[in-house]
Amino acid sequence: MRLKEIGEKELILKLLKLMENIYGGLLRYDDVEAIEIYRNILLVLKTDTFVKSSDFLPGMSAEDVGRKFVVMNVSDFAAKGVKPMGMLLSLVSPKEVEVDFILKVYKGIYESCKEYGIKFLGGDTSQGNDLVLSGFLYGLCEKDKLVKRSGAKVGDILATTGKFGKTSVAYQILLRGLDAPDDKVLRNCINAVFRPKARLKEGLTLAERKLVTASIDSSDGLAISLHELSDSSSVGFLIEEIPIAEEAISFAEYHGINLLDLVLYLGGEEYELIVTIPEEKWDEARKLIRSIGGELYYLGRVVPKREGIYLRRGSQKILIERKGWSHFKEWL
Amino acid sequence: MRLKEIGEKELILKLLKLMENIYGGLLRYDDVEAIEIYRNILLVLKTDTFVKSSDFLPGMSAEDVGRKFVVMNVSDFAAKGVKPMGMLLSLVSPKEVEVDFILKVYKGIYESCKEYGIKFLGGDTSQGNDLVLSGFLYGLCEKDKLVKRSGAKVGDILATTGKFGKTSVAYQILLRGLDAPDDKVLRNCINAVFRPKARLKEGLTLAERKLVTASIDSSDGLAISLHELSDSSSVGFLIEEIPIAEEAISFAEYHGINLLDLVLYLGGEEYELIVTIPEEKWDEARKLIRSIGGELYYLGRVVPKREGIYLRRGSQKILIERKGWSHFKEWL
Repeated sequence: MRLKEIGEKELILKLLKLMENIYGGLLRYDDVEAIEIYRNILLVLKTDTFVKSSDFLPGMSAEDVGRKFVVMNVSDFAAKGVKPMGMLLSLVSPKEVEVDFILKVYKGIYESCKEYGIKFLGGDTSQGNDLVLSGFLYGLCEKDKLVKRSGAKVGDILATTGKFGKTSVAYQILLRGLDAPDDKVLRNCINAVFRPKARLKEGLTLAERKLVTASIDSSDGLAISLHELSDSSSVGFLIEEIPIAEEAISFAEYHGINLLDLVLYLGGEEYELIVTIPEEKWDEARKLIRSIGGELYYLGRVVPKREGIYLRRGSQKILIERKGWSHFKEWL
Repeated sequence: MRLKEIGEKELILKLLKLMENIYGGLLRYDDVEAIEIYRNILLVLKTDTFVKSSDFLPGMSAEDVGRKFVVMNVSDFAAKGVKPMGMLLSLVSPKEVEVDFILKVYKGIYESCKEYGIKFLGGDTSQGNDLVLSGFLYGLCEKDKLVKRSGAKVGDILATTGKFGKTSVAYQILLRGLDAPDDKVLRNCINAVFRPKARLKEGLTLAERKLVTASIDSSDGLAISLHELSDSSSVGFLIEEIPIAEEAISFAEYHGINLLDLVLYLGGEEYELIVTIPEEKWDEARKLIRSIGGELYYLGRVVPKREGIYLRRGSQKILIERKGWSHFKEWL
């Protein structure tokens, strides 16, 4: 059996099972790993990888690659409310690649590390048949401030830091060759996939004030991320509103594409945080995030696990399926 | 200009220069990175990468790949006298690869992690055009116990933990198709490259008793490693003896290959430690390493930088050049 026949999630579960006896983290299947190195102090670690043949989008500049690679890594720290402090980097590259291209990628990495306050700690370079950037981020945090995927409680409000749909539109344009209804849609959607931002400020602020019970970043797509959060917390979700970018609305209309499919299943790499917040802390959380220049959008409610994950549309309840991008298996 | 025109070392120097302003480690161009996270406590980090198209040797089993990959990472910790505690792992693989192959690689990783007492902390999986394993190791140590490349003093004894030459012989057999003089040479040399060991016990013991002033692992080849240690410590070396494996002696004789070339320049991935030891601690160090089942071989003396790196052969002094394997540039 080949990897493409089982997909990423099944592979990861097999690997975790195999490593079970020597597994040494506090989390399992979360956005980061954590180890208690002193009483109540966690060392938080994360690796995320950019592979040119999988993750490069036509038209990206080398600097875009470097910046986005850092954002991919930072976003998971943002979701956990942990400040990333330093990064190691393993570079694999074909030997035919232009030195100048690599230097520009690192210039992007430099800029992003600076933006998020991350120190560079060196790394490793190797020759290979693909361009691969593996980042390794570390941070330290107090044990009770780490926000896991597993803390959502029935009755909590489900919320997110941004509107969805722009990256899906960009994929349709860049990978399927569809045209944009206008220049603004084109520009904003391309920008969303070429130059994404991590919601680090939002994540750190919410964790510092202990306003969230669970959190995940939405980089695997909205539907998959909801399912992951649901699995880890053993809860269901009743979604009442999805904040959708106007660019996605006009694109879906223009092409006659189902807007919900676009937003739920065809996106990814949006780097928004999906969080659960006790009802009594909702107002405070929303005000606080606005005060730092961000936004919290109401998505719906945490419900018992048996109620599943549904979107309410008037009197209709639409099932949100576990569908989206998976490495090795293309579109699942 | 392409990567193959400048080689790995020049690339690394360019990248370090570019990242200068956000560099946050205590070491620079050493075997590991270190950050002081508490008064006198260092967080030690390292990434090393196994790339199938560059590092895989014909005949290696999947388990060999996994085990060797861990050894590559552990060896650098051994050289610094720091116990590796946990590992994250980024896997990149083509989607056509057999699931079974990947599981066997991880079985090898599992065995090696267990052998060296390393906890597995999960990681990341991605699809790509090469099989890439990037390991990220962490450890903690007291600041004054970390053994840098930079501490060698004129007059110190230069020593190493093993005999050289078996991996060079294996490369000649596996990559150049030369035959072995006998089965024992074949078996032992192949074993040296398929199933190497890291000198972790030796490295930890020497550091714990503060017996070494500087240390490096010899994975880049004996000549290159001597040059790196010389650069970092601003010293020269007068080599008086090189411990050579009998397999290398008989192979060189059999093929009429220059034995010194074989041992100095054509090897690599030997994972021996090259250390400098103050003369008054030499006896203690040697006894101690023997007491834990290892060996310390005398190589020569640390001399002033201006005297360079030479091997004394009777009345002759042979220059040891900076030559060996470099990623991107093939044999330099």
